[in-house]
Amino acid sequence: MIIVPEKEIAGLMTRADAYNAVEQVFASMSSGRAYNFPVIREAIGHADALYGFKSGFDRDGLALGLKSGGYWPGNEANGLTNHQSTVFLFDADTGKCRAIVGGNLLTALRTAAASAVSINHLARKDASVLGMIGAGHQSVFQLRAAVEQRSFDKIIGWNYHPEMLQRLAAVAAELGIPFEAVSLAQLGAEADVIISITSAFAPSLLDIHVRPGTHIACMGTDTKGKQELEAAVLARATVFTDEVAQAVTIGEAQHAIAAGLITQDAIHEMGAVVNGTHPGRTSPDEITVFDGTGVGLQDLAVASAVVDLAVAKGVATTVEF
Amino acid sequence: MIIVPEKEIAGLMTRADAYNAVEQVFASMSSGRAYNFPVIREAIGHADALYGFKSGFDRDGLALGLKSGGYWPGNEANGLTNHQSTVFLFDADTGKCRAIVGGNLLTALRTAAASAVSINHLARKDASVLGMIGAGHQSVFQLRAAVEQRSFDKIIGWNYHPEMLQRLAAVAAELGIPFEAVSLAQLGAEADVIISITSAFAPSLLDIHVRPGTHIACMGTDTKGKQELEAAVLARATVFTDEVAQAVTIGEAQHAIAAGLITQDAIHEMGAVVNGTHPGRTSPDEITVFDGTGVGLQDLAVASAVVDLAVAKGVATTVEF
Repeated sequence: MIIVPEKEIAGLMTRADAYNAVEQVFASMSSGRAYNFPVIREAIGHADALYGFKSGFDRDGLALGLKSGGYWPGNEANGLTNHQSTVFLFDADTGKCRAIVGGNLLTALRTAAASAVSINHLARKDASVLGMIGAGHQSVFQLRAAVEQRSFDKIIGWNYHPEMLQRLAAVAAELGIPFEAVSLAQLGAEADVIISITSAFAPSLLDIHVRPGTHIACMGTDTKGKQELEAAVLARATVFTDEVAQAVTIGEAQHAIAAGLITQDAIHEMGAVVNGTHPGRTSPDEITVFDGTGVGLQDLAVASAVVDLAVAKGVATTVEF
Repeated sequence: MIIVPEKEIAGLMTRADAYNAVEQVFASMSSGRAYNFPVIREAIGHADALYGFKSGFDRDGLALGLKSGGYWPGNEANGLTNHQSTVFLFDADTGKCRAIVGGNLLTALRTAAASAVSINHLARKDASVLGMIGAGHQSVFQLRAAVEQRSFDKIIGWNYHPEMLQRLAAVAAELGIPFEAVSLAQLGAEADVIISITSAFAPSLLDIHVRPGTHIACMGTDTKGKQELEAAVLARATVFTDEVAQAVTIGEAQHAIAAGLITQDAIHEMGAVVNGTHPGRTSPDEITVFDGTGVGLQDLAVASAVVDLAVAKGVATTVEF
């Protein structure tokens, strides 16, 4: 059994590796070669924790297993990350446990890779201004992955707590791209690509803010009630997602569906665009929305890639099991 | 992170340890201190495999996690066990993965412990003949655990393939108890305790076979359609189970429920008898049935016990994670 501890991930996985793994598994999902199993998520009644699993099987990559873990709000006070994840991979030919992989950094990388896939396939080629809504832990991963998809010459950002935008400004400075803190109205008016990465339960970006031609990636929309965009935006947009079943129940699309503004048939798989079975953006004025709910297959895809890299580089620990 | 490989389990876990762990978690389940999460079970469309997990949380024992694995029918041809299981335990205070434990032998031990708990609490004290239906891999674990609960002076057995009964005869000889291969009619007429451990989809033991006073443990009744007992037996009996929700959907009780012979209220938790909130058997002529569906909490309970034993004996492998 192969062990890849959390501390090794940063030295193994590049954003390009994560991008390729996620793009490929989206394609496999859309072609019916990979599917996610039902999600388990439980408030366990101890330490205020949410615990559960996302799991699936990719017949193309032969990735089988689950990501387990959850949210322990008391961790930070004890010097630990609140979100704790571990990925378990199984041998699809024998059912034996094949690898255990630290899942904290991988979760950030695969989530950023998902929005990057959407930007690559759906944003206008001439997109030059990137707008960031949210400035939490995940936002810098999103930013770094996004700037590799288009030649952005400006990054603008809005956050409910404006002082946190310093985090994005620092990364933008490192990337050599000018950064400006703006209002939501200005963000909508200027940005060609918008990434919304908040854990809000009410929309930040409103319909009046969004101009034609924008691509919007709503990330981490994985809970009943969570909302980043006013539902009316989805009615104006062409809507894509990682998994339709999840988008309509716990994703950004849940609100537009509940309000009767769109139907499930109007939501397309991101993987279909990767596969070429959906054309993606068809006009410069089209608004495209990616509803990134986050699926277990993304976790399995990046964890499988990291195991291959760890074996190739000789940093995997192997234990008899 | 602690690793306890499959090959170490036999040297660590006694039947008594497994019995205590399972009895205790049944009690915690009945008192509402422990609960199982929904079961995931998927035909993955590769290698004819069934893959999934059983999971839960026991607030009393602070056991949190899952057993994952499944059934790979092609394994035996390659020198591997068809049933492959691994148990993953998490720290309930932080969400970090705490231990990985080989789950193959543990599954056999915890299943045998469950029927032993039922025999201890429900069989007549003067039970002297043990009847075994089924002679597969699991049957010998069942037999060994059962004979520790009462002073049996005879073991009788029936199997669809009678030649396989040699497996039970050999263990009986080792235990110094006479063994006899019998018909189902004779088995029902003579046995005070019956363990049915088959994977059949049609009843073996019929209502006419079962005499008053018998305790019957139907084990591994964990699939829609599986059946060991004619449903009419359950209507005559007092029915107990590990988990009522599972018994009525995938357990032995599914058939009696579907036929309208019993209602869900007529099925009692085994843990309630352990806790003393249900009296268990109340007369020598009462027929008692234990519907042992198998729950994730049993796996977590024995795996937790084995980790404690491995640490105490210094045979646990610890890897940085």
